[in-house]
Amino acid sequence: MDEFKFIQSITPKYYRHPNVIKGIGDDAAIIRHQQVDTIMAMDTMVESVHFSKKTTKPYHIGYRALAANISDIAAMGGKATAYLVSIVIPKRWREGQIHEIYQGMNDLAQSFNMDMIGGDTVTGEQLTISITVIGTVQQGKARYRSHAKPDDIVFVTGTLGDSACGLHVLLHCSETEFDQYQHVINRHQMPMPRIPFIQACHKINRMALNDISDGIANEANEIAEASNLLLELDYEKFPIHPSLRNFSEQQQVNWSLSGGEDFELVGTIPAHDWAILEEAAKKSNTDVTKIGVVKDRKNKNGTAWIYHGNEYKQLDKSGYTHLKG
Amino acid sequence: MDEFKFIQSITPKYYRHPNVIKGIGDDAAIIRHQQVDTIMAMDTMVESVHFSKKTTKPYHIGYRALAANISDIAAMGGKATAYLVSIVIPKRWREGQIHEIYQGMNDLAQSFNMDMIGGDTVTGEQLTISITVIGTVQQGKARYRSHAKPDDIVFVTGTLGDSACGLHVLLHCSETEFDQYQHVINRHQMPMPRIPFIQACHKINRMALNDISDGIANEANEIAEASNLLLELDYEKFPIHPSLRNFSEQQQVNWSLSGGEDFELVGTIPAHDWAILEEAAKKSNTDVTKIGVVKDRKNKNGTAWIYHGNEYKQLDKSGYTHLKG
Repeated sequence: MDEFKFIQSITPKYYRHPNVIKGIGDDAAIIRHQQVDTIMAMDTMVESVHFSKKTTKPYHIGYRALAANISDIAAMGGKATAYLVSIVIPKRWREGQIHEIYQGMNDLAQSFNMDMIGGDTVTGEQLTISITVIGTVQQGKARYRSHAKPDDIVFVTGTLGDSACGLHVLLHCSETEFDQYQHVINRHQMPMPRIPFIQACHKINRMALNDISDGIANEANEIAEASNLLLELDYEKFPIHPSLRNFSEQQQVNWSLSGGEDFELVGTIPAHDWAILEEAAKKSNTDVTKIGVVKDRKNKNGTAWIYHGNEYKQLDKSGYTHLKG
Repeated sequence: MDEFKFIQSITPKYYRHPNVIKGIGDDAAIIRHQQVDTIMAMDTMVESVHFSKKTTKPYHIGYRALAANISDIAAMGGKATAYLVSIVIPKRWREGQIHEIYQGMNDLAQSFNMDMIGGDTVTGEQLTISITVIGTVQQGKARYRSHAKPDDIVFVTGTLGDSACGLHVLLHCSETEFDQYQHVINRHQMPMPRIPFIQACHKINRMALNDISDGIANEANEIAEASNLLLELDYEKFPIHPSLRNFSEQQQVNWSLSGGEDFELVGTIPAHDWAILEEAAKKSNTDVTKIGVVKDRKNKNGTAWIYHGNEYKQLDKSGYTHLKG
């Protein structure tokens, strides 16, 4: 692969944002953000660790890698504006496949009006994609995990466990069944970061927020820890897509609690803001579900607990639940 | 390695910059840049492609990886303020070694008052470090490669080819000779980005600028292309460190023309600004040398040429020179 020609082929012909002062082509990119804060997140995906060619086409590798990064911007309450991509390309990958990776990123970027403004292209033994995504948020309006308060409602967008179910279908079902499970397969291959929803929530003054990259068990614990409060979830209220109902109860529990990469949002808001949240959900065509409450319990603060069946159990980050005192 | 504990161990206890609104610990970092533009660059280094354990200790891997990125900020005329690090860690690397990598980055970051504000830690087969560096530049004051004008002086900071010579010594000389070549070994392992110098140049209105990451032959061509002018260099004027004089004439030519990773700066300025440049060089304790001029020659614009011995030859990006019409 001729690196120079390759970089030329992936370089945008124009930039969508007027705030891109300098894009690809010099030593660095320049962005102008006026009177807003700049959000930045960086994620890396490695072949056969974070994806395999078997279940993920090159197009979807690019799409998902960028989606995961944009989701971090959503989880801060921001808007994504630009990204940089560093890719390590093994010799066995064909140039056409690498183009498909960039096409997957570009199609998602287009739907958010984002620009690719830089990055790096190097050779190596294992396909590795590092993305740095840049976004904006109004000063003082970022949504931190530490913003929960007692009596807040815990909400979640969309449905839980779809991506893990989709991966299971791709790995273990026959292709004739794929049609029936197209929804969860799509959710695995082309997750949609919740930027429009979180932008529509601008009227809500305070919100703790996290995106579901590792599973809600993990993310609920992170909010509980950062806010030093108890997050109390009710499993019966979890939004589960009908596709998951064809699988065992145990699979449903595992996927919805600890299936990662749904890139939905989990957050907490004051109860009196629930109507505003529902309005924002409607406006952005997003489902939201109340799944719990925030409590201040000295001996349980910093942890998440769950009502499941007739039991009240502590919820580990891994999704494992166990009865405790 | 316990990833959670590892991340805790590398997370800064405080941030040096008040403009770091949120560092490590939420979904993304937040930076506040008021009335200045934000510069961003991203570089990736892969084990056995960009460095080998034989010549580069973990400490120096981190140091050099960050230095390369900071140098891109210098090459835009900016000041570096923060960075994000994504690292792919193979199982065979010990945690202590990974800490040394971060220590190398942190020591360099400290000398520039920079903060590490985020990143990612994943496992994989080949040690890979991607760094995104963030800097600032006054609006409209960025130094592009395209800023050269006819009759400009072409200058270079420091000496050329030191890093390549240092690598050669590490690979081919006996350890007893290392003392004698400590200067070039240091230049290879701990290159110093030219931020103080370029900041001291703020009085110069116009400057084309590039950093020497691939060799001056490449960078001079990039300025010539971007400015669509001819860069005419004089080999006799090249600043060469005495250490290089112990090697063959051909080695000196190769290293100074196409030895990469010196992370010096090459630029062009109006002749009447030379005194200001010298003053900035003095103030920042940097050597600067005139090595050529910019010309407008219709049939040669976009290329670099060099006087060498009694010949006037076109200089390829690779450093290869050849006689032409």
